[in-house]
Amino acid sequence: MPVEALYLEDFKVGQTFRAGALRMDAEAITRFAAEFDPQPFHLDPAAAEASFFGGLVASGWHTAAATMRLLVGGGLPVAGGVIGAGGDEIRWPRPVRPDDTLSVETEILEVRPSRSNPKVGLLKVRMRTLNQNDEEVQVAVANILAPTRNAGG
Amino acid sequence: MPVEALYLEDFKVGQTFRAGALRMDAEAITRFAAEFDPQPFHLDPAAAEASFFGGLVASGWHTAAATMRLLVGGGLPVAGGVIGAGGDEIRWPRPVRPDDTLSVETEILEVRPSRSNPKVGLLKVRMRTLNQNDEEVQVAVANILAPTRNAGG
Repeated sequence: MPVEALYLEDFKVGQTFRAGALRMDAEAITRFAAEFDPQPFHLDPAAAEASFFGGLVASGWHTAAATMRLLVGGGLPVAGGVIGAGGDEIRWPRPVRPDDTLSVETEILEVRPSRSNPKVGLLKVRMRTLNQNDEEVQVAVANILAPTRNAGG
Repeated sequence: MPVEALYLEDFKVGQTFRAGALRMDAEAITRFAAEFDPQPFHLDPAAAEASFFGGLVASGWHTAAATMRLLVGGGLPVAGGVIGAGGDEIRWPRPVRPDDTLSVETEILEVRPSRSNPKVGLLKVRMRTLNQNDEEVQVAVANILAPTRNAGG
């Protein structure tokens, strides 16, 4: 069922959304790493065994990109799309390992109309990315643009 | 010339590094978006014209991933690899557009030995990702693990 697209006025502090699931297999982990983060613990299971992580793990930026996929897929149903103005925080409390299945849980922390532009406002959103055991693999707080209902859309 | 890998003791506040260049062409932008951020302004030049951005732009997470590639390629020459403990801030002041060429400039803001673990410390690093006109397309502040020389490596 498609999620209804929401405008600034529709968001309330404390509101939550959830979307999933996205499986991160070893092929996807090493393919992302080969292009963007070519370090042994993201590329080579044997080398990863001997590393800080004790086994193959996804690049944190792969986890971030996968989280974006989940946000666009219903984790943050903003009318017109999910456009980030930036983030206040991003942490990776636990690595993502092969065959972990991720979901995202978002919570609206603030809803701020713009003083200068009546067509748009900002949402401050906490995004918790969880594995199949509901353990946090990424926590981020981001500022997201949201159009108002009178934006002319 | 390969950059020498540095240990915690080698880093000083104010030290800077620079690495580049990485070209972001339309094919790479739309391929990343199709997998991780399938929104019209990242996927379709015609739809992007009518969007907030006025043309095709890279996903911010693509810019972040490309920045990681530059960090691993000499932008932050930490012995044992670039392992992030998280970030305090990430912003995208300007979008990346097709055929922009990115480089990264890092500056060491803090060098903190661990109180509990003599083998590792933390660097706080500002990372400015720049386009070919030296305009900021991403600014992030991250905490990066760095091994000490007595880590037994």
